[in-house]
Amino acid sequence: MSRVAGEKVLIVGAGFGGLACAKALGNRGASVTLIDCNNYHLFVPLLYQVATADLSPANIAEPIRRILGRCRNIDVIMGEVAGVDTAARHVTLRSGAQLSYDRLVLATGSAYDYFGHADWQERALGLKTLRDARRLRARLLTAFEAAEWETDPMERRALMTVVLVGGGPTGVEMAGAIAELARHALVGDFHHINTRDLRIILVEAGERILSGFPPDLGAYAARRLERLGVEILAGRPVDAIEDDGVRLGREVIRARTIIWGAGVRASRAAEWVGAEADRQGRILVNPDLSVRSHRNIYAIGDTAHCEDERGRVLPGLAQVAKQQGEHLGKALRRQIERGDPLPAFRFRNRGNAAVVGRNAAVIDFGRFRLKGFFGWLAWGVVHVYMLVSVRNRLAVSLQWLWRYVTLQASARLIADDPSTGSSTTPDRS
Amino acid sequence: MSRVAGEKVLIVGAGFGGLACAKALGNRGASVTLIDCNNYHLFVPLLYQVATADLSPANIAEPIRRILGRCRNIDVIMGEVAGVDTAARHVTLRSGAQLSYDRLVLATGSAYDYFGHADWQERALGLKTLRDARRLRARLLTAFEAAEWETDPMERRALMTVVLVGGGPTGVEMAGAIAELARHALVGDFHHINTRDLRIILVEAGERILSGFPPDLGAYAARRLERLGVEILAGRPVDAIEDDGVRLGREVIRARTIIWGAGVRASRAAEWVGAEADRQGRILVNPDLSVRSHRNIYAIGDTAHCEDERGRVLPGLAQVAKQQGEHLGKALRRQIERGDPLPAFRFRNRGNAAVVGRNAAVIDFGRFRLKGFFGWLAWGVVHVYMLVSVRNRLAVSLQWLWRYVTLQASARLIADDPSTGSSTTPDRS
Repeated sequence: MSRVAGEKVLIVGAGFGGLACAKALGNRGASVTLIDCNNYHLFVPLLYQVATADLSPANIAEPIRRILGRCRNIDVIMGEVAGVDTAARHVTLRSGAQLSYDRLVLATGSAYDYFGHADWQERALGLKTLRDARRLRARLLTAFEAAEWETDPMERRALMTVVLVGGGPTGVEMAGAIAELARHALVGDFHHINTRDLRIILVEAGERILSGFPPDLGAYAARRLERLGVEILAGRPVDAIEDDGVRLGREVIRARTIIWGAGVRASRAAEWVGAEADRQGRILVNPDLSVRSHRNIYAIGDTAHCEDERGRVLPGLAQVAKQQGEHLGKALRRQIERGDPLPAFRFRNRGNAAVVGRNAAVIDFGRFRLKGFFGWLAWGVVHVYMLVSVRNRLAVSLQWLWRYVTLQASARLIADDPSTGSSTTPDRS
Repeated sequence: MSRVAGEKVLIVGAGFGGLACAKALGNRGASVTLIDCNNYHLFVPLLYQVATADLSPANIAEPIRRILGRCRNIDVIMGEVAGVDTAARHVTLRSGAQLSYDRLVLATGSAYDYFGHADWQERALGLKTLRDARRLRARLLTAFEAAEWETDPMERRALMTVVLVGGGPTGVEMAGAIAELARHALVGDFHHINTRDLRIILVEAGERILSGFPPDLGAYAARRLERLGVEILAGRPVDAIEDDGVRLGREVIRARTIIWGAGVRASRAAEWVGAEADRQGRILVNPDLSVRSHRNIYAIGDTAHCEDERGRVLPGLAQVAKQQGEHLGKALRRQIERGDPLPAFRFRNRGNAAVVGRNAAVIDFGRFRLKGFFGWLAWGVVHVYMLVSVRNRLAVSLQWLWRYVTLQASARLIADDPSTGSSTTPDRS
């Protein structure tokens, strides 16, 4: 289908990895095709703010065509991959269309893993797509609406309880943002309930929250969350997600809003190409990001199991995906144009951050750390800078400023059906 | 369910009419309950800009609780009305809850009428709700995505054709906005199609478009649209909406995007209370807006068939609904507080407007008229001023300014399933 000459590079997924790879190949010799199931690149690190009604979907999503519009050698296709024929070197889309390739880049991200419990997925919402965020927002706000008119005290208590499963950055940031929504933005809106009574429980199976961060930053985040009224249950694995709540051992916490941030699993890209994968479904890659069994196929971001020089697996972070995409794009460009070998990828830690509500964030730069107000300021500046377009940088800055001054959430709309479950299909592919 | 003392006023629908009525009763003697199926008040006059990706849903929707938060005597319920028992004086919600009333205000708006053709509804999208707007946006943008890769020229032509049925303000404003989307915002995004080739056809059964406006304004709007490349087919009634297009007599226009703005029908409020209604389902009301058969029930806005002093039925405009709501709220307040009789409603024309793209609008003030750039400027100022919150006034102004300078649409996301049909349940109830 591609109508530009040159070696054909097919990139699947326009997340941080796929997009960076495409950009590095822009206006060069290769003929590039980028496939994504959405027409936009989603800035996932701020997705939780769409769920808590602070931002609108358009603030964190940018049309892919707009980003790559000036790259005449890049074609964009909105579609879903059904399978890959590695022998014939073509990808088949759900629509039936076939796209041939010389090189294939897999950047299809990850989805939440409910450990095989399909029913949990209906009850505990994940947060990977715009749809997820809208649905979660609807569920949160609808619970308040129902609590306002509920006469049974037990049921009202369940409506006024939110359980977050998983104490990673998503769980921590969501817990802080929900606490501020209930304690600031919604105050005065309801006459028969006090939104400050919302019970927010963060459940973590491991010993402490933010286990990917140094212990002192994790402890700081826990203190800040507790000050916002969040209850942290660490060392408490979830045994079941039931219709009316979460079961931890013999205890059942009754809750109408359950948010899932526990297990993550790579998309099915490994199955498509028959590549060796780890337990989370990530494709094992060589240091140059090529797939072990296929030298013309590459995996980046959450799709790849990539180890650093000390043998540690790189985590599923936006900055890892972005650096890998950029590295691979440049490497492929040099190989296609000059025949250079692909160099090994080296990750540079630009700072791993989590926000814990207004005026507080933790950032781990490896060598040094930042927390509190200056961490929060740095986080804000970096995230605004990382947004793709000038328009969204302006829009997000203004909305944050507005919210900082007025304490009001901007986008408190129930605009989706809160009853349906979370999507497990990966965000990109 | 109401927990405030005093005479109980129940208002169904938080559109322009219901909201204005509630506001006029705020912090007064009556105990007011406002029911709406959404948690927000929707600024419908700008809904078409959500459909054409110029604005985000949150820009034109404001949480009802936020608007009325300071009125301690007003309770807000998010729910759908299932029926009314006028003898027992209570309303039953879909949830099963019953709400008793002393006085009932029906402000439930209208929905598109497909003249009994349920299948047309799937094919021709209406534009009454946020959901409709998101779906229409998804269908418009998805058609371009598909056209980019379509190899069959006939099918590509159908994908690149938009038919708007009905030459009223909605059809005219949508046609202009779609033309600008294709001619400015999307240019350069696609490599294999020229978005400027989009064929936009506005079909009107009557003799001319904008029949609610004076002839010279209608003619001006037609000229402006034609300059933007819109084809206007006036005096051409639609015989059928078929799977692959629109049938006008023997001619079939093949089109993948069909937009319905032809027939409108009031919500089922007349059936609920067993009131006399006109052919469009509007309840016949007395000059004081009370329902003829029930002195304690009132109908306003699109729900009411209300005649002016010359016997002309007032049109279904936001300003009519707003003025009626305000009038009724004040009248009820005086009757409840002082026993005053309800005065008759008199409509004051504040100007009926339609935009025909960048720099052009028509406004009919009755005594004088405005068109062109100054009409457009006046339209913009008035619409920004009419938005409920300062935040949205700022947000919409900034986005319009941004768009005016850059020609870029802000919210070009495909964030809904474009394949499902339009909703016919009314926006409010």
